[in-house]
Amino acid sequence: MAYETITDRKGTLPLLTPMSEVAGRMAVQVGAQYLEKMNGGRGVLLGGVPGVPAARVVIIGGGVVGTNAAKIAVGMGAHVTIIDRDLDRLRELDDIFLSKISTLASSAYAIHGAISEADLIVGAVLVAGAAAPKLVTREMLKDVPNGAVIVDVAVDQGGCIETTRATTHSNPTYYEEGVLHYCVANMPGAVPRTSTFALTNATLPYVLKLANRGFLEAIQSDPGLKEGVNTYAGKLTYEAVAMDQGLEYTRLDGMLGGTTASKGA
Amino acid sequence: MAYETITDRKGTLPLLTPMSEVAGRMAVQVGAQYLEKMNGGRGVLLGGVPGVPAARVVIIGGGVVGTNAAKIAVGMGAHVTIIDRDLDRLRELDDIFLSKISTLASSAYAIHGAISEADLIVGAVLVAGAAAPKLVTREMLKDVPNGAVIVDVAVDQGGCIETTRATTHSNPTYYEEGVLHYCVANMPGAVPRTSTFALTNATLPYVLKLANRGFLEAIQSDPGLKEGVNTYAGKLTYEAVAMDQGLEYTRLDGMLGGTTASKGA
Amino acid sequence: MAYETITDRKGTLPLLTPMSEVAGRMAVQVGAQYLEKMNGGRGVLLGGVPGVPAARVVIIGGGVVGTNAAKIAVGMGAHVTIIDRDLDRLRELDDIFLSKISTLASSAYAIHGAISEADLIVGAVLVAGAAAPKLVTREMLKDVPNGAVIVDVAVDQGGCIETTRATTHSNPTYYEEGVLHYCVANMPGAVPRTSTFALTNATLPYVLKLANRGFLEAIQSDPGLKEGVNTYAGKLTYEAVAMDQGLEYTRLDGMLGGTTASKGA
Amino acid sequence: MAYETITDRKGTLPLLTPMSEVAGRMAVQVGAQYLEKMNGGRGVLLGGVPGVPAARVVIIGGGVVGTNAAKIAVGMGAHVTIIDRDLDRLRELDDIFLSKISTLASSAYAIHGAISEADLIVGAVLVAGAAAPKLVTREMLKDVPNGAVIVDVAVDQGGCIETTRATTHSNPTYYEEGVLHYCVANMPGAVPRTSTFALTNATLPYVLKLANRGFLEAIQSDPGLKEGVNTYAGKLTYEAVAMDQGLEYTRLDGMLGGTTASKGA
Amino acid sequence: MAYETITDRKGTLPLLTPMSEVAGRMAVQVGAQYLEKMNGGRGVLLGGVPGVPAARVVIIGGGVVGTNAAKIAVGMGAHVTIIDRDLDRLRELDDIFLSKISTLASSAYAIHGAISEADLIVGAVLVAGAAAPKLVTREMLKDVPNGAVIVDVAVDQGGCIETTRATTHSNPTYYEEGVLHYCVANMPGAVPRTSTFALTNATLPYVLKLANRGFLEAIQSDPGLKEGVNTYAGKLTYEAVAMDQGLEYTRLDGMLGGTTASKGA
Amino acid sequence: MAYETITDRKGTLPLLTPMSEVAGRMAVQVGAQYLEKMNGGRGVLLGGVPGVPAARVVIIGGGVVGTNAAKIAVGMGAHVTIIDRDLDRLRELDDIFLSKISTLASSAYAIHGAISEADLIVGAVLVAGAAAPKLVTREMLKDVPNGAVIVDVAVDQGGCIETTRATTHSNPTYYEEGVLHYCVANMPGAVPRTSTFALTNATLPYVLKLANRGFLEAIQSDPGLKEGVNTYAGKLTYEAVAMDQGLEYTRLDGMLGGTTASKGA
Repeated sequence: MAYETITDRKGTLPLLTPMSEVAGRMAVQVGAQYLEKMNGGRGVLLGGVPGVPAARVVIIGGGVVGTNAAKIAVGMGAHVTIIDRDLDRLRELDDIFLSKISTLASSAYAIHGAISEADLIVGAVLVAGAAAPKLVTREMLKDVPNGAVIVDVAVDQGGCIETTRATTHSNPTYYEEGVLHYCVANMPGAVPRTSTFALTNATLPYVLKLANRGFLEAIQSDPGLKEGVNTYAGKLTYEAVAMDQGLEYTRLDGMLGGTTASKGA
Repeated sequence: MAYETITDRKGTLPLLTPMSEVAGRMAVQVGAQYLEKMNGGRGVLLGGVPGVPAARVVIIGGGVVGTNAAKIAVGMGAHVTIIDRDLDRLRELDDIFLSKISTLASSAYAIHGAISEADLIVGAVLVAGAAAPKLVTREMLKDVPNGAVIVDVAVDQGGCIETTRATTHSNPTYYEEGVLHYCVANMPGAVPRTSTFALTNATLPYVLKLANRGFLEAIQSDPGLKEGVNTYAGKLTYEAVAMDQGLEYTRLDGMLGGTTASKGA
Repeated sequence: MAYETITDRKGTLPLLTPMSEVAGRMAVQVGAQYLEKMNGGRGVLLGGVPGVPAARVVIIGGGVVGTNAAKIAVGMGAHVTIIDRDLDRLRELDDIFLSKISTLASSAYAIHGAISEADLIVGAVLVAGAAAPKLVTREMLKDVPNGAVIVDVAVDQGGCIETTRATTHSNPTYYEEGVLHYCVANMPGAVPRTSTFALTNATLPYVLKLANRGFLEAIQSDPGLKEGVNTYAGKLTYEAVAMDQGLEYTRLDGMLGGTTASKGA
Repeated sequence: MAYETITDRKGTLPLLTPMSEVAGRMAVQVGAQYLEKMNGGRGVLLGGVPGVPAARVVIIGGGVVGTNAAKIAVGMGAHVTIIDRDLDRLRELDDIFLSKISTLASSAYAIHGAISEADLIVGAVLVAGAAAPKLVTREMLKDVPNGAVIVDVAVDQGGCIETTRATTHSNPTYYEEGVLHYCVANMPGAVPRTSTFALTNATLPYVLKLANRGFLEAIQSDPGLKEGVNTYAGKLTYEAVAMDQGLEYTRLDGMLGGTTASKGA
Repeated sequence: MAYETITDRKGTLPLLTPMSEVAGRMAVQVGAQYLEKMNGGRGVLLGGVPGVPAARVVIIGGGVVGTNAAKIAVGMGAHVTIIDRDLDRLRELDDIFLSKISTLASSAYAIHGAISEADLIVGAVLVAGAAAPKLVTREMLKDVPNGAVIVDVAVDQGGCIETTRATTHSNPTYYEEGVLHYCVANMPGAVPRTSTFALTNATLPYVLKLANRGFLEAIQSDPGLKEGVNTYAGKLTYEAVAMDQGLEYTRLDGMLGGTTASKGA
Repeated sequence: MAYETITDRKGTLPLLTPMSEVAGRMAVQVGAQYLEKMNGGRGVLLGGVPGVPAARVVIIGGGVVGTNAAKIAVGMGAHVTIIDRDLDRLRELDDIFLSKISTLASSAYAIHGAISEADLIVGAVLVAGAAAPKLVTREMLKDVPNGAVIVDVAVDQGGCIETTRATTHSNPTYYEEGVLHYCVANMPGAVPRTSTFALTNATLPYVLKLANRGFLEAIQSDPGLKEGVNTYAGKLTYEAVAMDQGLEYTRLDGMLGGTTASKGA
């Protein structure tokens, strides 16, 4: 049973959402920290002070990660721009933030222009079950101010920035093109008290369903939960993983079929 | 009795404040209108729409005019920067707007940088009883985007922009350095219903005082009201005006002295 | 291929939405301008000033146009009432604006009452592909204050106010029953820089799809895009238009059928 | 030592302020309750619901009581108008509430107009140490909607509404001209847990000063505290009270003089 | 035709929603009132005052009732916690309130913890057509502060608090475990002017449909309206009610079938 | 000439204010960082996520440092309590934050209670020219949750927490009573780009005055600037410093007297 492939009725991944929320909120907090001079950044205070401009934060992706990053960045007083290719999502964000943020339709041109003035760039483009697209190229980074900070939350899926490579909590940052990259894969691990509660909130309903109804009935009553079954009876039952790894794939429905039938008898 | 020289206990000019409030709020409304293409502007919508950036509004001066301009500009969804030399005023604005605006300490460098990216510039620097300082030079305007709009509310006192010259409602705008200038002197005249109420609110207490107590007692009980007496018994009694016009000046106190004495008898 | 009949998965018209957003935001800006005395209005400042009441804005229709109009009107400090017949939409608006606006369930009685105290009325009722209903009658206008302003954004579809007739940028307004009507059909044309970006954001995905996949594959993979095909191979293929114009109608699917079949062979 | 005559450096009455804050906030809560049908009111919900208008609340006086009443009324979703004669106070309120309330300059005309549409009227005009002025006349009440509610917080000083007379918690309301009057003198007494903390916060510094320095030194080091001394050594030492009651008045400074002198020796 | 079983396209109950909105907003207003000492509560002012903490309000259920209760409680300045088991709903609430409230995933542990510090508890869990679950037990109430207030809006369906029993306007409250319970079933009845408008807004479209199209056509064109038919031609046609009451149930479709057929002829 | 003793007309220290603003805003950012598990804190995310409570932040002192800390903490979604002994300042904060924060009147009891539930404590009590009072005792810390974080901005003046001792950027934290202390003296040094601008904004007017008018005329025209003169012609001229250090003090006025006289000749 794999957390990251369980889906809900809307086709989203309910057990990954809480971690995306934590990661999005942490991305800005961590970005603010690395903008400090001694941490390698430009020495800019995210919110500025009266008489001194606030930092500019560009968030690439307006989904769960990006929206939560924006909430914190707006709250800290930064100038925030969210870039997304889905205009309807930008409209929802306009309803939520009511002109406290800028929204931009995604294009290489728009991204290049926005990050050329950015102090902090948050990579927040996650495509479920696929590698993140490389929306920021190395070439674009040459126009980003020296000492600006990138926090690429999409690093688990390869990152949405060309120069992203995974780092660790013990050695979290590196420079590319004069821009400080923070690409620690497991950001929510830094706040376990919050993350554990958040994850438990999301998993508990499934755990209770599995416990109360048994494995077979549970996955048959909830197609989304069935999506979470990656191996069963020693067989690999999730097609995308099988293809990705070059392993043999067995359809779960075929294996369950008999069981269900006999149960129905 | 001149409206514009009556002072209150704080040394401000209570009868000019309502007109400054109206003018400040109108400045942004008028600026939005002249940003329309057919009115000569850049063809930019002040608040943008989801996916398209909002306009940038730079307000020079954070007093009554500038604060009221900022309230409207923020409300319409623009990016707003207020520039003032008084840091304490910038702090008060930060308390009022809570990071919805940028504040910048005034300097030629800061003004030049801010207006170089501006769609709308509001001149809002008014120094009581003196010509406004020319904070924006013609040279700076060369870096302002073509078709940007200037609304100089300080035009009554000569304007705070070097290229400002008074215009009229029938011929309100002209270009200098590719920037559209709107410098109509009496902006509140366009909304007489609002302006008349605002002015009446401010003048009524003085009118009542003059009516109830008579001229002499009224001006003697209220030193601020006495400041409003520019001529008395055919003599010019306001020193600054006399000097400005090269006319003879007669001290009001000297003239009232005997009267007061005889009244006291 | 007609912009205004392409639909998205939710059945809305994605290529008209950006223009509705621009028009909605402009409607209030234009309304504020025409409330100025010299433009023929009541001489009222939309936001009032401290001590003088703000203007009352009534927006008929809570869809894209109306919501965007409300954002600007609230921002400028006006008293805003939105009238819509869809209670669920009013609830969403209450969530977005959190009691900063009034919402009213639509009825002739509610509309009549609200506009009888209005300074600015925005007509924002657009029914996709049909004439707008005449929700404000000439009779009702007799109770609207003299010099109030109507901006009817629905003019393209005949207007939602009985007295609406299309005007042009060169002669934009007229009076009916003492109320100033502004009914210019192409409002977004006044801010081409913003409108062009907004429209490009919306059309680019379709253009790319047509360019990358070719016409036939594109419209067959995207039923909404197919809705945009109004003529094909010289035949009129959009039923509503054919009926409206009394022309012969040819079903697109029939024409494509062979092509698809042959392609499948 | 009388709480209500101690002053602070700004000339305000620091020990009455907390009670004014509690009373102002309670006034709206109590008003909402009495607007319920079974309590005698119009049967209107203060905040309305989506599709149904909110109640109109008119607050007469923009000082401590009125500002706190406005905070609650705005929060509950009502339409709020504050009337005050001090334009500068109205400007401060505009900065605090940023167009979420209407402000009106006080006049009989403005008051009459506002209350003619009101569901709830809060009397919040308190003049330190004097009877409140009767700003709302019985005549005006004839135009107030039947079943509207008046909460006159100024009742302790006679009320700022002509028809006000003190009531008690056991019999709190009566009708005049069809308007329900709630005029209980000691409103903060209903929430003793909050009121006691609030009062202790305000009095503790004075109590500590009296305890640590002794009576004479305390009142001599703090002129505001000395204002609180109404009787000393059996003599009445507060002039306004003496005059009001027709009693003999002894100057406190004269009585302390000797003591001070001897202390100085 | 029963109001409470008509459904709309989303499966919600459109004719109950307005009453839930009114009840949710009233719940906090009523709770504030009963927190007053003389009404039996703790003597706490909901919003506190500067220097004294505000009350803590715990709302169990984040649906229509709970959201409306939260809007009023936040507006009055209280600390608000909403508990719901649906994480997606909590996310929507976070978008609406933007960190002005706390949201908690529902569990016995979370509820127990939250109410142990609460001044006001609002029971807002309503399950359409079923008894409300008892989420707060008598045992938990022992840890709630003495004099805290419970307003159980779910009382119509048995209440979501173990100790809830229906009360009336004439005798509205009782104590259990030292906690004051207010469980009047028909709260919207207290504000008939608002409630009647709200209900009319919701029912009018159905009434018009029934009037214009006749009973049979109306219920056949609108499956949700058909759900509202509980009895027809003397037979009980709503299965849940029949089962609940142990009465015979007749399928409406069977009865209408012939009619429809003959109409079709 | 010492920055930290120059005063302005209001008696505040204008050259220290910008550094207090930066330090206040950084205090929360740094506190959030040290709440991360790997940095030694409780592993709590400051803003929580939907379904998981936010952290509690207690700010001791409502002056420049505390207000700026509160702006960031509120923005990040934390529960914020500000404690100050000045009730008028708490009222101003209530006007600025409008119930988004809690304000508490300062007392050992209030502080103890608040910090017993705190995740982050910001020490923000600075008394100009004096050691900060020790408002939080070691004894109180025993009730603070393990892994909570203290950021004592008052460390330059000895700290307002008993267990505070100055730390450095290279070794910034230590535990006392299980609470992580961060007491780096020069916090603004971490964001030099912001701090330098902020300081320059504040000092430039004085530098210009000294440059344009010369030392003697400058300090004589601006009594506040004269306060900044700590040594002159080899003599110590600032009394408090002299007393503090046990050195000889020479009155500046005496030394300047002759100079001024001769200049006047």
